[in-house]
Amino acid sequence: MEIISEEILGQTIRAREPMSHKGNYGRVCLIGGDQHYGGAIILASQAAVHSGAGLVTTATMKVNHGPLHARLPEAMVVDWSESDRLTTSIQQATVILIGPGLGLATDSLTLLKRTLMLLTKGQICLIDGSAITLIADYRLTLPDGPTYIFTPHEKEWERLSGLLIENQDRESNRLSVNQLKGIVVLKKHRTEVYLADGIWQNPLGTAAMATGGMGDTLAGMIAGFVAQFPLNNAILAAVYLHSYIGERLGKAHYVVLPSELITHISSLMKRFEGN
Amino acid sequence: MEIISEEILGQTIRAREPMSHKGNYGRVCLIGGDQHYGGAIILASQAAVHSGAGLVTTATMKVNHGPLHARLPEAMVVDWSESDRLTTSIQQATVILIGPGLGLATDSLTLLKRTLMLLTKGQICLIDGSAITLIADYRLTLPDGPTYIFTPHEKEWERLSGLLIENQDRESNRLSVNQLKGIVVLKKHRTEVYLADGIWQNPLGTAAMATGGMGDTLAGMIAGFVAQFPLNNAILAAVYLHSYIGERLGKAHYVVLPSELITHISSLMKRFEGN
Amino acid sequence: MEIISEEILGQTIRAREPMSHKGNYGRVCLIGGDQHYGGAIILASQAAVHSGAGLVTTATMKVNHGPLHARLPEAMVVDWSESDRLTTSIQQATVILIGPGLGLATDSLTLLKRTLMLLTKGQICLIDGSAITLIADYRLTLPDGPTYIFTPHEKEWERLSGLLIENQDRESNRLSVNQLKGIVVLKKHRTEVYLADGIWQNPLGTAAMATGGMGDTLAGMIAGFVAQFPLNNAILAAVYLHSYIGERLGKAHYVVLPSELITHISSLMKRFEGN
Amino acid sequence: MEIISEEILGQTIRAREPMSHKGNYGRVCLIGGDQHYGGAIILASQAAVHSGAGLVTTATMKVNHGPLHARLPEAMVVDWSESDRLTTSIQQATVILIGPGLGLATDSLTLLKRTLMLLTKGQICLIDGSAITLIADYRLTLPDGPTYIFTPHEKEWERLSGLLIENQDRESNRLSVNQLKGIVVLKKHRTEVYLADGIWQNPLGTAAMATGGMGDTLAGMIAGFVAQFPLNNAILAAVYLHSYIGERLGKAHYVVLPSELITHISSLMKRFEGN
Repeated sequence: MEIISEEILGQTIRAREPMSHKGNYGRVCLIGGDQHYGGAIILASQAAVHSGAGLVTTATMKVNHGPLHARLPEAMVVDWSESDRLTTSIQQATVILIGPGLGLATDSLTLLKRTLMLLTKGQICLIDGSAITLIADYRLTLPDGPTYIFTPHEKEWERLSGLLIENQDRESNRLSVNQLKGIVVLKKHRTEVYLADGIWQNPLGTAAMATGGMGDTLAGMIAGFVAQFPLNNAILAAVYLHSYIGERLGKAHYVVLPSELITHISSLMKRFEGN
Repeated sequence: MEIISEEILGQTIRAREPMSHKGNYGRVCLIGGDQHYGGAIILASQAAVHSGAGLVTTATMKVNHGPLHARLPEAMVVDWSESDRLTTSIQQATVILIGPGLGLATDSLTLLKRTLMLLTKGQICLIDGSAITLIADYRLTLPDGPTYIFTPHEKEWERLSGLLIENQDRESNRLSVNQLKGIVVLKKHRTEVYLADGIWQNPLGTAAMATGGMGDTLAGMIAGFVAQFPLNNAILAAVYLHSYIGERLGKAHYVVLPSELITHISSLMKRFEGN
Repeated sequence: MEIISEEILGQTIRAREPMSHKGNYGRVCLIGGDQHYGGAIILASQAAVHSGAGLVTTATMKVNHGPLHARLPEAMVVDWSESDRLTTSIQQATVILIGPGLGLATDSLTLLKRTLMLLTKGQICLIDGSAITLIADYRLTLPDGPTYIFTPHEKEWERLSGLLIENQDRESNRLSVNQLKGIVVLKKHRTEVYLADGIWQNPLGTAAMATGGMGDTLAGMIAGFVAQFPLNNAILAAVYLHSYIGERLGKAHYVVLPSELITHISSLMKRFEGN
Repeated sequence: MEIISEEILGQTIRAREPMSHKGNYGRVCLIGGDQHYGGAIILASQAAVHSGAGLVTTATMKVNHGPLHARLPEAMVVDWSESDRLTTSIQQATVILIGPGLGLATDSLTLLKRTLMLLTKGQICLIDGSAITLIADYRLTLPDGPTYIFTPHEKEWERLSGLLIENQDRESNRLSVNQLKGIVVLKKHRTEVYLADGIWQNPLGTAAMATGGMGDTLAGMIAGFVAQFPLNNAILAAVYLHSYIGERLGKAHYVVLPSELITHISSLMKRFEGN
């Protein structure tokens, strides 16, 4: 196992090509936010936009459109019950993030199944929050082709892998990850990233980040990063930077609010930008 | 009677354990906000989140969900007319705050009664604003088991205790508090806290804080504090810090807005954090 | 005619009594904001709260409640079609401001008539924007008892007084004001205030303030000031401070946005506070 | 071809006349924002207001009114399905901007056709985003009289002019622009402005601006500028300043958010104001 270091930031976050345009920075489609957890998909969407994703579309329950736009006019919105439109948004996306605030209702399950069915080779699909639980509970199989990234916390990883939290050592995790055929970001005190070719540990993070919405924010950052940068590095850099900002704000705040953390992503990406 | 001093802050607001997670910082369920007073429950919810509560769920009339999420995506929401969901939220909470903007309508009374019925041993229930008036007007009895904290201003205390404002001396208050079997935070020029084993007076506060929404903000802070810290200290520290921030902002503002005060909670908690 | 000077601020904005509470700073009821002009009543409400009014209730079309609370949780809201509730709000208010974004529809006229009917002795009623036009167009008579303050711009004053803009000299204005039995704040390049016993001119103001919503903001400030301070001084101080802040921000901004101006009211009131 | 230089700012952004009022700074009507792209018209409206337009009315789908007002109470709103009201708003406007987030649905086409029909001599009409695509797809003819400004990116220009992106050299563009009888702001790495009497290139801009909503923001700025300043200079100055702010923020941000850029328009206009 290796430790992620600050160098990952400069290696990953490269100066943008002068001639580039927003189409070069990915199309991210975020799916989540039911009538109770709209805030989760709002935070994830904000994080994706502030991380530099070129175009962001948020598919969520209609009731969440107003507050999302009040906070983030940069995002496009789709009512997740508009089937045709949602299909198009998923098909056009380079990165799909499903899960923040998705909920566990029948409609959420249907939405998840339909999303998985639409994915194609070359797309990156992040599976977060209740999407992980649904996949575990209903033993959904993931179609071959796309690259999958799972972002469970320990309890969700228990559901997905069948490993009790106390049995989640690296070897067991590695075996379970291999079966999943995806990348796993296991969120915990020192978050671990299970890539295809190695395991990385995040040395940063603070208990000041232990508050609702922080995981949704990380998921949105990873989505924004993988939309722009090479896959493995993008994940490691997002995980590291998320905690870096959290630690930094944690020096002056007893609790770090996700919505506050988000406003610092772009300036810290710039500070660490490599040439 | 003793005077709360600044030391309460360091004694109460302890450095967070590095290995902790959001589940360690309480689940707060806030109930309030009808079609006229949605702002009250928004402010209380913001105060709870900014105070560091681990997970915050706000049960309020549906019309308030949009503005709440526009201001505070960190909160989860429940339409207070969704019975099953609300029941679950109350049962899972470690701290319940009922009252800010609850109103005095029949539906509000029903909601209050149902909430009281659901409470169990070990839970902390804050009773604020119109919930106090409803309890007084309908002589509701509070089930044994939970710990109750009342946060009346003088007029609400008159309704609840039967003591006319001019008769609210400490001895009479003490007797009434004893009958209530709860803790009372009596909001006034120099707020008094009636704990089971003593009376404390808040030495701080300024007339710049005399504006609508300030009490809702205090209620949310107390909810956030008791979700994280030992009960008595948590209450005293929240009362003190609320006024401390108010005085501080009052040096540069003729009136201190609750929504402004809230944004300073986390940084001042950090400044006074004890080891 | 006299010129308002900076001294009016210290004479008017007095240090608050330590023992005071929000009830000492007035209850303001603002009425306005139809389906097109909701922003006007939002700005007026923000200005009243930021000026220190103790309790603020905004009666507006239901569609405006969400954005109002998203910006200003400190305000209480009433759907202006809820007759009973609106009646209570008007009766309990010490200051009523009607007009910002009220519109000229039949419903707006009905609302204005009903509001006028409910007013009683001792109340202060500000009449702004479309309420002025409606009073002029339908020759509404104002019941005796309340104190009226009109805040027309020159075209609205033409409608109300019958004086063409080119004939609006001070003598003619004075005669018209006397007939109205109210105070007139005539908004123009150098705003003039026609009190019962004199005419005052505002020496401040800048073309950077020439933008939509600035008048609504002034109306809200006057409402907040007359809720707290002696009538004549309150009006003069609000007019002066509004332009003072505008000039100040205008040094660094080509256009001064009302929503930005509002955020400076409380700190500048503090700076000029008299003892 | 000439290069736009910083001098255009001082030549265009003139000190406001002290005696002026909001009526002197134009009435801008913005039309756009369907159920998916409400954010686009919100950003354009904010940009127009922050640029100093005297009065701004936004005609958009009703679902967007709430978030628009939550962000921008300075704007008036019209539900774009309210025919009579919309007609009046268009007729009273000095500048009409149609397109940001308009969408390509039948209703959007109808709305565009009706808007074009209502335009009269002396009005300035900006055609942006999906309005350009609709005009190209349905070969709509533009009535004589108004001044037209098109703000396509290269793909939209391909649709409108029939010139493939690789064939978009200046001579070919010039010929196509002449046929259109309008001004074209061709958005690309170094944006080109095709005026009636010359071609200007913008020397500024950065890839940090390559993110969704940036074009909507430029369109709103141009609308705000042409409402206040002489036509050709206004366009050049808006294009230049938009990129100037973007470059400036890009020094400290990896990605520049449109909503952040907007908050700097007014202060930078002031800095470059000419006498």
